[in-house]
Amino acid sequence: MSRFWSDLASQLTPYVPGEQPKAERLVKLNTNENPYGPSPAVLEAIAGTSASELKRYPDPDSSALKAAFAEREGLTPEQVFLGNGSDEVLAHTFQALLKHDKPLLFPDISYSFYPVWSELYQVNYQPVPLRDDFTIDVDAYSAPNSGILIPNPNAPTGVLLPREDIVRLLGAHPESVVVIDEAYIDFGGESATALIAEHNNLLVIQTVSKSRSLAGMRVGAAFGQAPLIEGLVRVKDSFNSYPMDVVAQRATLASLADEAWFRQCCDKVVATRERTDKVLRDLGFAVLPSAANFIFARHPGHDAAQIFAALRERGIVVRYFSKPRIDQFLRISIGTDEEMDELFAALAEILAM
Amino acid sequence: MSRFWSDLASQLTPYVPGEQPKAERLVKLNTNENPYGPSPAVLEAIAGTSASELKRYPDPDSSALKAAFAEREGLTPEQVFLGNGSDEVLAHTFQALLKHDKPLLFPDISYSFYPVWSELYQVNYQPVPLRDDFTIDVDAYSAPNSGILIPNPNAPTGVLLPREDIVRLLGAHPESVVVIDEAYIDFGGESATALIAEHNNLLVIQTVSKSRSLAGMRVGAAFGQAPLIEGLVRVKDSFNSYPMDVVAQRATLASLADEAWFRQCCDKVVATRERTDKVLRDLGFAVLPSAANFIFARHPGHDAAQIFAALRERGIVVRYFSKPRIDQFLRISIGTDEEMDELFAALAEILAM
Repeated sequence: MSRFWSDLASQLTPYVPGEQPKAERLVKLNTNENPYGPSPAVLEAIAGTSASELKRYPDPDSSALKAAFAEREGLTPEQVFLGNGSDEVLAHTFQALLKHDKPLLFPDISYSFYPVWSELYQVNYQPVPLRDDFTIDVDAYSAPNSGILIPNPNAPTGVLLPREDIVRLLGAHPESVVVIDEAYIDFGGESATALIAEHNNLLVIQTVSKSRSLAGMRVGAAFGQAPLIEGLVRVKDSFNSYPMDVVAQRATLASLADEAWFRQCCDKVVATRERTDKVLRDLGFAVLPSAANFIFARHPGHDAAQIFAALRERGIVVRYFSKPRIDQFLRISIGTDEEMDELFAALAEILAM
Repeated sequence: MSRFWSDLASQLTPYVPGEQPKAERLVKLNTNENPYGPSPAVLEAIAGTSASELKRYPDPDSSALKAAFAEREGLTPEQVFLGNGSDEVLAHTFQALLKHDKPLLFPDISYSFYPVWSELYQVNYQPVPLRDDFTIDVDAYSAPNSGILIPNPNAPTGVLLPREDIVRLLGAHPESVVVIDEAYIDFGGESATALIAEHNNLLVIQTVSKSRSLAGMRVGAAFGQAPLIEGLVRVKDSFNSYPMDVVAQRATLASLADEAWFRQCCDKVVATRERTDKVLRDLGFAVLPSAANFIFARHPGHDAAQIFAALRERGIVVRYFSKPRIDQFLRISIGTDEEMDELFAALAEILAM
């Protein structure tokens, strides 16, 4: 605490990300990273960065990268916004599009950064409870609101909201900005970007961190009709003219160009997730149906915090949230098959104790 | 304009950065980039990025890079803050440390992003006029205030504020946060970081964009006593946990390790600046004394906007600001000697017309 802090800085409760352990030996299943690296073309693109690109400011509009995303999604470049990770894109979305007189609604159990951004930008928000089975009930979003924010698949549950529910939500709230946060969509969902043409209130947010194995590179995107994107650009251009460095732009362009690698890695993660689901059930866990690259599970006979600690002792890091409704769950990222085998062996040992 | 924009998004007047022309043939002297590339060690460090670094989230605290900056400045890592370019660092500074009841003071002629951040975070500010000779009068910062922000050397003038004036300013305003924005300090000034130990209200901001030829990489730093830095961290951790990608961290570490390259490039730029100063005076320009990697000059017999346009026609881009007090000046970045020779030839031709 310091008298030099603004009132806001004094009041904030910052987000705490999952641990990035410095020891290499750990089995790291705590931050939903992709166990497979990015396309070799990405490494080549990074290595090809020239001195003359480094000494110049990057393209402030990231035009080439915007065009590549637009082409992939069947949109125009004016319907694409890029930022330094989807966290930056989400932060700008809170400030530009979700701060209004009426509250913002989002699930009571969802990405724990949402309340932090609400506090940072003094956005009035109201959590909407998930059903008992942790699915989202779109009819529960009935309170007067100016915005609705839904992660799909949801995190940390992994549960997918079907396309028809999103259509219903959009139809019921034509005066609200509806944001679908699709950080995990490539592992089993169908993106809502196809709905953008018909809905001027829809913003879809994606990231290259998970399905494209580029968490280290910090690139996120938002898709929506041009007026929504322009609102984001106004905030971005009042914050940082050049949020995307030249290497991040090169790397992501190369990633988008190698669709085969991308699909193959996602397919491998999905196959391992299905195997993990089965083994965990065999071990007695209750497992939520996941469309993401992680699994959310609880064991009726064992305390989640204790399993978490016992795994940590054995060099396996998963994520545990000490929060209402989910404090008996573990969120387990999908690693390689070998990493998951280590997890299964450790769990069998811990549960037998 | 869209009904979905927040009131703030509707009211903003975003910053407009200098043009990044896509044609390669231009002589680009408009955004104060370094004409010499970064150390070869930086290119090696970038090319050495591994797939396993890319697939993981980067160290959210950039610990290794903080330690390297701290060592260079004779500080501890707790006295260092890092961000995605000094623009992001400045933005967080406005929100965390410069928003108070009493106004923020900064020069009427300075970095034109300052009023934009003030608007973004609703910071009450008051410009303080430079003297007629464009020097800063620290005694003019006498209005009640909670913060004072001075670029040193100033931009776009290039004029240096002597160390003793900064000491006097700090002494006169012990209850205000005093921010010295040193984007150009390595081209002829003496950093205020040496004053941090004795002043708990001093924050010094630097960038690798200019003197380290890494504009394309987006890395900025702030130095100050731990409580000031902690205020910045609170905002950063409420905005984006991982603002620094893994390649930016690697590149900057390599740059800091090659002090010889850094000094050599700065010395070359300074030598070319001195030559430019002389040639421009010979051409009849009035030139402000510059301690930066650019020169601010006007010609008593020729309209600045017309010279700017005539240079642009000849493929030479400099910066022109259509603003009170400076609308007869051109800001000319220091390029290579060959680039400056092209500029001098074009100017001689234009002035003879």
